[in-house]
Amino acid sequence: MSRSILTVPVQKVDGDASTPVQDLLAIEEPLEIRLAGEAVSITMRTPGHDTELAVGFLCSEGILTSAQQIRHIDTTKNSVSVSLNPGVEIDLERLRRNFYTTSSCGVCGKASIEALRVQGCPVLPQNGPLISSSVVHQLPIVLRGDQRVFDRTGGLHGAALFDGKGTLLLVREDVGRHNAVDKLIGAEFLTGDLPLSGKVLLVSGRASFELTQKAVVAGIPVLAAVGAPSSLAVETARRFNMTLLGFVRDGRFNIYSGASRIQ
Amino acid sequence: MSRSILTVPVQKVDGDASTPVQDLLAIEEPLEIRLAGEAVSITMRTPGHDTELAVGFLCSEGILTSAQQIRHIDTTKNSVSVSLNPGVEIDLERLRRNFYTTSSCGVCGKASIEALRVQGCPVLPQNGPLISSSVVHQLPIVLRGDQRVFDRTGGLHGAALFDGKGTLLLVREDVGRHNAVDKLIGAEFLTGDLPLSGKVLLVSGRASFELTQKAVVAGIPVLAAVGAPSSLAVETARRFNMTLLGFVRDGRFNIYSGASRIQ
Repeated sequence: MSRSILTVPVQKVDGDASTPVQDLLAIEEPLEIRLAGEAVSITMRTPGHDTELAVGFLCSEGILTSAQQIRHIDTTKNSVSVSLNPGVEIDLERLRRNFYTTSSCGVCGKASIEALRVQGCPVLPQNGPLISSSVVHQLPIVLRGDQRVFDRTGGLHGAALFDGKGTLLLVREDVGRHNAVDKLIGAEFLTGDLPLSGKVLLVSGRASFELTQKAVVAGIPVLAAVGAPSSLAVETARRFNMTLLGFVRDGRFNIYSGASRIQ
Repeated sequence: MSRSILTVPVQKVDGDASTPVQDLLAIEEPLEIRLAGEAVSITMRTPGHDTELAVGFLCSEGILTSAQQIRHIDTTKNSVSVSLNPGVEIDLERLRRNFYTTSSCGVCGKASIEALRVQGCPVLPQNGPLISSSVVHQLPIVLRGDQRVFDRTGGLHGAALFDGKGTLLLVREDVGRHNAVDKLIGAEFLTGDLPLSGKVLLVSGRASFELTQKAVVAGIPVLAAVGAPSSLAVETARRFNMTLLGFVRDGRFNIYSGASRIQ
């Protein structure tokens, strides 16, 4: 259980009051899945039951059909390697055809964050915006008021861009959290408005590494999530001097990084 | 807006009472993103703002750095193709290195479902389990009681396997919904217990196509989600004769498919 949880110091904001507390984060780290000597997938996961995750993935993708096909399973910290019994044939080419790409970042959390630095992402500047806690409390209320498809289906993630005074600039919705954020960043990119200095990004769900990465690339200094952040999201925010807020709802939120931007 | 929502007939269960109503689903369909003539990603998304999604993805992955690099953007129903101005160089090889694979299924929803059939997934048998609505109402309460890391971090998705009487068999947690399900299916696969006939899978979030696909492959006849299902999840469940329940919480749920298995 201990590898699934990380304890970090945060500022808990309730109304106008702020208290330092210890918060527990779900750990998020990449796992490489190898089959017959070849890397077939890297997924961001919570450590624990890694063997079952790798085998379940290979099974539910239709690659493995029985446990008898497996000769041996090697597990290291962030990698599971499945070898096959003699005579077992699998169609790795079909695996390639059936799989598609999504964003990634290397095989360990540190490498993921380092990749962002190498990509040329600057550490966010210390100056501006300075945001009052009452503005933060309003963000999810404003997003919810503007999420038109969510209201009708209950099934969509929302991403909203605000200025430092809490004025709503843009809302996008999607079944995928990362897609809602990509739609929003894409709109700003097309109008030449990157980096999004002085802006606040609110996401309706949790803050994963992937969303934090996207915010860093777009130069967004404040990321606020209605849900919990992952361990790697917090580490990334701290590395790039981003303000990361979690559990922003019902007049409360936690500050995981960059508390100096919150009044 | 209309392409984001689909209306379907469902059975709304409240306590013991069941009423036929029209429900609105968030549409989920694959989008292929092409850059300089090459397919670089397929993502499951809600249609709408597709150009911005494609460009935002290419930008937040560090591939495009300015709108001036773009010569033209072609959009068809489920594909966005970005061409570049003469002289603009991008590192497609780095794109490949930085990206990893995840499960997929083709470029249109129909192809996705068809791929499952070709993969040899049988339509689920009509017989058993027969589940009473009072058992369904208990499922999320039992899952929540067993989600140990979620209770401490608020940041994890859970997947739980039950028998037809509502007895909890296995729980797995992860930052990724698909990973929690893969861990659970992997455990059963390793013990040779697939297909999971007569079992019920409960997921703590929404029911996407990806989760429904995994349940079909594992032969699970009943998929219950605490959140909303997507359009493609419902279509897949109906095609494979799976019972799909959504919004299973607070003594209520909706039946999207396979109502005959619910008493």
